[in-house]
Amino acid sequence: MAEFPKGVKNLINAFERLPGIGPKGATRLVFYLLNTPKVYVEDLATCLVKMKTDVKICKTCFSVSEQDICSICRDSNRNIRQICVVEKAIDVMIIENMGGYKGVYHVLGGVVNPLEHVGPDDLRIDELIQRVKSFLTNSDMSGDFEIILATNPTMEGEATALHIKKRLEGLKIKISRIGSGLPIGADLEYADQATLSRALEGRKDI
Amino acid sequence: MAEFPKGVKNLINAFERLPGIGPKGATRLVFYLLNTPKVYVEDLATCLVKMKTDVKICKTCFSVSEQDICSICRDSNRNIRQICVVEKAIDVMIIENMGGYKGVYHVLGGVVNPLEHVGPDDLRIDELIQRVKSFLTNSDMSGDFEIILATNPTMEGEATALHIKKRLEGLKIKISRIGSGLPIGADLEYADQATLSRALEGRKDI
Repeated sequence: MAEFPKGVKNLINAFERLPGIGPKGATRLVFYLLNTPKVYVEDLATCLVKMKTDVKICKTCFSVSEQDICSICRDSNRNIRQICVVEKAIDVMIIENMGGYKGVYHVLGGVVNPLEHVGPDDLRIDELIQRVKSFLTNSDMSGDFEIILATNPTMEGEATALHIKKRLEGLKIKISRIGSGLPIGADLEYADQATLSRALEGRKDI
Repeated sequence: MAEFPKGVKNLINAFERLPGIGPKGATRLVFYLLNTPKVYVEDLATCLVKMKTDVKICKTCFSVSEQDICSICRDSNRNIRQICVVEKAIDVMIIENMGGYKGVYHVLGGVVNPLEHVGPDDLRIDELIQRVKSFLTNSDMSGDFEIILATNPTMEGEATALHIKKRLEGLKIKISRIGSGLPIGADLEYADQATLSRALEGRKDI
């Protein structure tokens, strides 16, 4: 059995390490790139290296940024009295793409997950508490201050939200959790029991 | 609405141009790479550039190779009296991975496709005819010489196989086409009509 040339094999191995790309997908990508102009492949390589060197982590909210403080935290039109707490930087972009949210963010960098040895200390929870406390001492406390816990409605996300809620107890702030229930367009017939029971619990007067 | 940092945006655009990767998949890949060690991302970038510079096209069979002539064409244990004609270089690797085939290959570089303006002259058909002819004149013609047409059983693949068959007519060689019918493990109930009729046509005595 003949083997792939070394250059092809190495690139397949490198692609395979990416999430959602298996051996077949990686092979297909490499053979696609073999037939594309060299300039495009070089552009992809440059983008990869530049992304790693240019993109920083915002010192306030820990989202991705071009500068030390991200464009959202620098924006004076944003309501800094409303912090949306999310798991990952990509969640910030998903909420931003939705449009309409005018507050700021706080990226935890994951969720509490005992099976993967991720405890509360591995997340940016202390930084969140510090951020809230320093805001409360510096500001004149006029108006509300709200923390929206927007971790995923999974077991780990719920546990993390609960843990943060407990840590914030005693501070005079509003703490909310994103709504969960049936997604728009769903069918009761196909809904799982946990989602259905959550949808009933979260019913609203109309 | 806040935007992604430029480094992130550029890499998403570069990934999106790859086959099978959409905007969401590209975004997920980039945010995954943001959290991976720099050395891995740089390794991926190096592999990309090296693949483009190091990998050559074999001058005999037009498959991918590390040298001017690929390892299969250089292998004296291979039966050069049996040429398997395939569409793309990746097909060579797929047949090699299967194991068992001991002949050599010829990569056409595509199929005849009038809708995409690909005619027979855009493929390496002349090179195949030349290869067969020069073999027939140089060798003492003892034993058989076989061309296996292994283009895909699609409309374009069939048309290309038929075209090559016509071009090779008159030469004293055996020309065969890979079998088509129901794939192993398939169910008659779910087979499409074209496959089923091909399976009946291609029935064998047992």
